[in-house]
Amino acid sequence: MSVTAPLGFTAAGLTAGLKPSGTKDLSLVVNNGPDTAVAAVYTSNRCKANPVLWSQKASADGQARAVVLNSGGANCYTGDFGYETTTLTAQTTAELLTDAGTDTQPEDVLVCSTGLIGVGGQDFRDSIVNNLAPLVAAADNSVESGQAAAEAIMTTDTVAKVATRTGSSGYTIGGMAKGAGMLAPGLATMLVVITTDAKLDQATLDQALRASTSQSFDRLDTDGCMSTNDTVILMSSGAHDADVDTDEFTTLLRELCLDLMHQLHVDAEGAHHDIAITTRGAASEADAVDVSRSVARSALFKAAIFGEDPNWGRVVAQVGTTSADFDPTQIDVIINGVQVCTASGPDEDPANVTFERTVDVSIDLHAGDDTATVWTSDLTHDYVEENSAYSS
Amino acid sequence: MSVTAPLGFTAAGLTAGLKPSGTKDLSLVVNNGPDTAVAAVYTSNRCKANPVLWSQKASADGQARAVVLNSGGANCYTGDFGYETTTLTAQTTAELLTDAGTDTQPEDVLVCSTGLIGVGGQDFRDSIVNNLAPLVAAADNSVESGQAAAEAIMTTDTVAKVATRTGSSGYTIGGMAKGAGMLAPGLATMLVVITTDAKLDQATLDQALRASTSQSFDRLDTDGCMSTNDTVILMSSGAHDADVDTDEFTTLLRELCLDLMHQLHVDAEGAHHDIAITTRGAASEADAVDVSRSVARSALFKAAIFGEDPNWGRVVAQVGTTSADFDPTQIDVIINGVQVCTASGPDEDPANVTFERTVDVSIDLHAGDDTATVWTSDLTHDYVEENSAYSS
Repeated sequence: MSVTAPLGFTAAGLTAGLKPSGTKDLSLVVNNGPDTAVAAVYTSNRCKANPVLWSQKASADGQARAVVLNSGGANCYTGDFGYETTTLTAQTTAELLTDAGTDTQPEDVLVCSTGLIGVGGQDFRDSIVNNLAPLVAAADNSVESGQAAAEAIMTTDTVAKVATRTGSSGYTIGGMAKGAGMLAPGLATMLVVITTDAKLDQATLDQALRASTSQSFDRLDTDGCMSTNDTVILMSSGAHDADVDTDEFTTLLRELCLDLMHQLHVDAEGAHHDIAITTRGAASEADAVDVSRSVARSALFKAAIFGEDPNWGRVVAQVGTTSADFDPTQIDVIINGVQVCTASGPDEDPANVTFERTVDVSIDLHAGDDTATVWTSDLTHDYVEENSAYSS
Repeated sequence: MSVTAPLGFTAAGLTAGLKPSGTKDLSLVVNNGPDTAVAAVYTSNRCKANPVLWSQKASADGQARAVVLNSGGANCYTGDFGYETTTLTAQTTAELLTDAGTDTQPEDVLVCSTGLIGVGGQDFRDSIVNNLAPLVAAADNSVESGQAAAEAIMTTDTVAKVATRTGSSGYTIGGMAKGAGMLAPGLATMLVVITTDAKLDQATLDQALRASTSQSFDRLDTDGCMSTNDTVILMSSGAHDADVDTDEFTTLLRELCLDLMHQLHVDAEGAHHDIAITTRGAASEADAVDVSRSVARSALFKAAIFGEDPNWGRVVAQVGTTSADFDPTQIDVIINGVQVCTASGPDEDPANVTFERTVDVSIDLHAGDDTATVWTSDLTHDYVEENSAYSS
């Protein structure tokens, strides 16, 4: 079950010819109401793709009727022509929805694209615009259409990522995601669309979304590279007419985001190990995130994990590059349950560490009570291969 | 010619048994005066190795008689025992120099170590301390001894790095360096010792050194990993009694630092391409460094260069992650002379870019007149291999 699980949403996915593989590449999610509230977070990269520039403006009023998504081209750094393609996509979709009986303005249609940077020319435009009519016509609330929408945004993903949660008063949250986090933003941009029928105002949706993404997608850092197209959209139809406990909603939304994040993580390109880096004993949650992220971004540490080398020295050295609160002589490191470093010196024999696909690294700063986890992947020959050969 | 080129300096290098290879691993540089001024810069990593902790204190008064350096062990995260090894090294060297007729305090002896983090136990201590007497006895001002000192600090370096410059009033600057910048700080810590007979006060030496390192070693960023042991030491004997133009001295010192930096760069572990990233049209030099460094740290960009893929999208995306002053729609990128991106969009055909060992990437921000270059290496299978297998 995916974005069509909550009441009020229809979806579709089809092949528009954007991808040489001939697999589905054009996707639509429509919110049929009664509400059309939307919250969204976008990449903080200052050099944003055209669909992000459009959608940021279009979602600023907190209302959206539909999202059109494509794989097979990021429409990023494609200039005015690329931006016109995005606006044309929104205009055409708005006209088609209006013709079908749902009055829609172009600014009510958000657009997301994923694929290679620099792809967004005439063929790209034609493939999208010429296929919007069959796309709108195909949209329904079936499980199959929700799945098709999720499949049509895949690039190098090996499986479609979907998730749902149900609240105690009967409302539903559904989501779909694509990409490998920031592992390969040239092609594997992260796009996420989440739908719900919970009756919530826009401010509450926005607050819940930011609280959830900051503790899920924001903590997946597979290669330190920030995409130009990342987008997470949450739409509410309000079609399930019952009271909603906003704390419970936020908790379920965070769970769903973590669920999708883990699906992205384990499908990350070229990864051989899925690494969770947890920093404990931090003076603040921000410190804990900083320290975990600094380790997640160490090429040396990530190469060591690929070699199944429990190289704690590379962990402590990386902690030392942060401005977090800690005593450099009091750092502990535990790798897969073996305390290889105590008080910044050797402890248990690293040879006792055994490795599987999942690797847990725990750092204790002994500087407070806060904890945070950042997820990353190892640095492998496959990563080098896939990212050196992709566009050539 | 190396650190013994200037008047007043003696040096030595021998095999103490620290390295399994049986090659030279213990090195000494002595300043025989008349002056003993020293300036030094150390890693900004907060989790520093024991020799750095010692040398920072010992050089704080601006005076030093000698530097003892070893390869075969970083003496980092080795606790109190490791720190005692460093102080014992300085004490023993001071006694030996005093016995030989040069009154020396332990605080006049700086210590540098390089090799694996965590190595610094009893065998390590014994190998160093027991070989200090023959090391001090072997020191002389010959070309051969200067070369031996440079060889004894090599780890994975394939060649010893040395350089000299001569000033118009006849003074000399000599230097030796080891390591692959920050490419593999677990083993390839950067150590640099520079000597001069120019008669300069300590404040002038310090100013010249900081001006030189900030535009040379600080701009080599092979893998974004900051070492725990990096040290650059400049000692002046004042033995050449002639006026010194401090501007000229600073220029020559910067040239010598750039010379050594380029020797480190081209010998970087696992690298197939030596990449210079120059940012022009920046609003400030700091902006230019930030932008160049952000590109130098992109795993995606570095993997693309390994694959000889002129992927300008990954350059612009990385520029977007900085806080430099620029218009996201006005960025130009030139790779090996081909302007593949103009105004943040495609320009000349990337297929026209040809690749050799040296790769030049030029970014124009059109936001001012400042320029800076950062040097880096590509991300290769060899890098992954060497850094996943080193300590296992």
